[in-house]
Amino acid sequence: MNIEGKAYRTIWLAPDGWSVAIIDQTRLPHSLAVARLATLEDAARAIKTMQVRGAPLIGATAAYGVCLALRRDASDAALDQAIDHLAGQRPTAVNLRWALEEMRAAVRNLPREKRVAAAYARAAAICDADVETNRAIGMHGAALIRAVVPRKQPGERVNVLTHCNAGWLACVDRGTALSPLYEAHDGGTALHVWVDETRPRNQGASLTAFELGAHGVPHTIIVDNAGGHLMQQGLVDLVLVGADRVTANGDAANKIGTYLKALAAQDNGVPFYVALPHSTIDWALASGRDIPIEERNADEVLVMSGRTRDGQVAAVEIAAPGSPARNDAFDVTPARLITGLITERGVCEASRDGLRSLYPERG
Amino acid sequence: MNIEGKAYRTIWLAPDGWSVAIIDQTRLPHSLAVARLATLEDAARAIKTMQVRGAPLIGATAAYGVCLALRRDASDAALDQAIDHLAGQRPTAVNLRWALEEMRAAVRNLPREKRVAAAYARAAAICDADVETNRAIGMHGAALIRAVVPRKQPGERVNVLTHCNAGWLACVDRGTALSPLYEAHDGGTALHVWVDETRPRNQGASLTAFELGAHGVPHTIIVDNAGGHLMQQGLVDLVLVGADRVTANGDAANKIGTYLKALAAQDNGVPFYVALPHSTIDWALASGRDIPIEERNADEVLVMSGRTRDGQVAAVEIAAPGSPARNDAFDVTPARLITGLITERGVCEASRDGLRSLYPERG
Repeated sequence: MNIEGKAYRTIWLAPDGWSVAIIDQTRLPHSLAVARLATLEDAARAIKTMQVRGAPLIGATAAYGVCLALRRDASDAALDQAIDHLAGQRPTAVNLRWALEEMRAAVRNLPREKRVAAAYARAAAICDADVETNRAIGMHGAALIRAVVPRKQPGERVNVLTHCNAGWLACVDRGTALSPLYEAHDGGTALHVWVDETRPRNQGASLTAFELGAHGVPHTIIVDNAGGHLMQQGLVDLVLVGADRVTANGDAANKIGTYLKALAAQDNGVPFYVALPHSTIDWALASGRDIPIEERNADEVLVMSGRTRDGQVAAVEIAAPGSPARNDAFDVTPARLITGLITERGVCEASRDGLRSLYPERG
Repeated sequence: MNIEGKAYRTIWLAPDGWSVAIIDQTRLPHSLAVARLATLEDAARAIKTMQVRGAPLIGATAAYGVCLALRRDASDAALDQAIDHLAGQRPTAVNLRWALEEMRAAVRNLPREKRVAAAYARAAAICDADVETNRAIGMHGAALIRAVVPRKQPGERVNVLTHCNAGWLACVDRGTALSPLYEAHDGGTALHVWVDETRPRNQGASLTAFELGAHGVPHTIIVDNAGGHLMQQGLVDLVLVGADRVTANGDAANKIGTYLKALAAQDNGVPFYVALPHSTIDWALASGRDIPIEERNADEVLVMSGRTRDGQVAAVEIAAPGSPARNDAFDVTPARLITGLITERGVCEASRDGLRSLYPERG
């Protein structure tokens, strides 16, 4: 996607042909900084500290992390160790493990001297496939947005609410939940996005608002508390979110607070869709109850960073001194609250049968 | 309540016998500052800028605002003008209008020379009555908390979730939703409070956490997104919130986001109680759909203030530059989601019949 007229992906091979460049998302929206990953440890740290985040992008970064590890040591032991290390950085998004298993499969039967080239080729293919997958999600999801138009008054925009960032910054490009919005907007559908700020890390206010602003999509930032009220007022036509893991029965783990929006959507008859690539589906887990939920540092709740009046980025403590905090990063939205899952193959019911209808080979 | 061993109310008559002292709540939790109100305009500004906030305290402050106005001019015209001006500062909490009508009734039939003394007497009585009302709410609510104890394992605490600040800082003393917690805690019930930070103004993280910490009540700050997940995990036994206006049918307007917690409570079988004094009941409104919802400045969403590392209080912009925000201050929780209303007269169903059972004189 474009930032000030220049096309970016979130991750790309540096001009040296082997190190990896990423947009450092911990610096957004205050500055657009590119970081360079030269080692396995760089990649692991980028995932852990959320320089890269979003389930698909975590997977892509992990894939390149394997490449960087194999450059140093292409042995079986090094491969296993790199995969284990990268997999341990964040527990909830299943795309991380999916991408690592893809990498393992791509190189494990090759002689050592062919592994590095094969790894880079597979990582690049994972990135390119992510973009194509997201374009397909965008096509299928845009149809759902356009279907709302006939119910609106002339001149009214379609109002979509989203939580966290499932945009191009969460992927290699295009996004999952935001891809349909870009597709519909670019196709001429008048729409407006309610952007949940998404505490504690504010990915909505800092990343989604940044993305939508850069692309010219009308949007308004709201606090996470506001979505239910807006739905009660008839100001939300559709909710579109991403996912970090969808289990075989259609339950969806996504950023903490997603479940509350799904409840409000159901209570107000607002369709609630989850957009995801196939790599987010965990066929091995029967239900969302079994998804491990990451608990992150309490400081993410207690300390907020932003721009001071003189343009510096500063961190401030916002809470009563001495009060502890807890920071669960995700929650699970049960399938019964999800109107449909949008994947690269189309839209299905959030259920075992629904997923099987799109992925019969997994049945 | 005590702060570092010293007893405070949120509002009191200054030693000069006529001006009014308040805890400036815009300075908490970073500093405990007392502000002095000497004019009607001071009182109006304190309400508007949320130096005082919380439905009962807004009412008490407005009562003293009438006193300050009458000191300058005790005419009927000045009385009417003062009441109109104060009533216009915030639209949602009905206690403001209730207290102003109490003040009008207390002075309107008196000769001018007796009005000032009568007004001060009535304002003091409103404050004292608020404290007694809240003590009664505390007794009734504490019984609900203690009723959970037999269902807990030995050594387990009762977990209560609250949203925003309905503690002593929202009232003259004791609090509405927090009064039962103080009562139960002081009576020896082991409890722990999940404190929603309550964006955008963070009254939970800054005021509720401050109150509970000062009183020694175990608590943990969470983002507003987290409550549903905690309920899914069985970590919430009870939700207790305050209200800014409860309509005749039991619908409750409260801080934005309350509705989402009520939905999650219902979905997880967690009891959801609203604590309120009689002055919060709007008998004239048939349902919550008719409650005016205040829309506040978008900067409250976009700018956050806190303590820097060197102990200064600083404001930082947290969102993508140029992105607009919307800031509805309250939402309405429909009566169907409320397990019960806790008033100074006891606990009732959130319904017209329930309220009539406690206030038969209003039937």
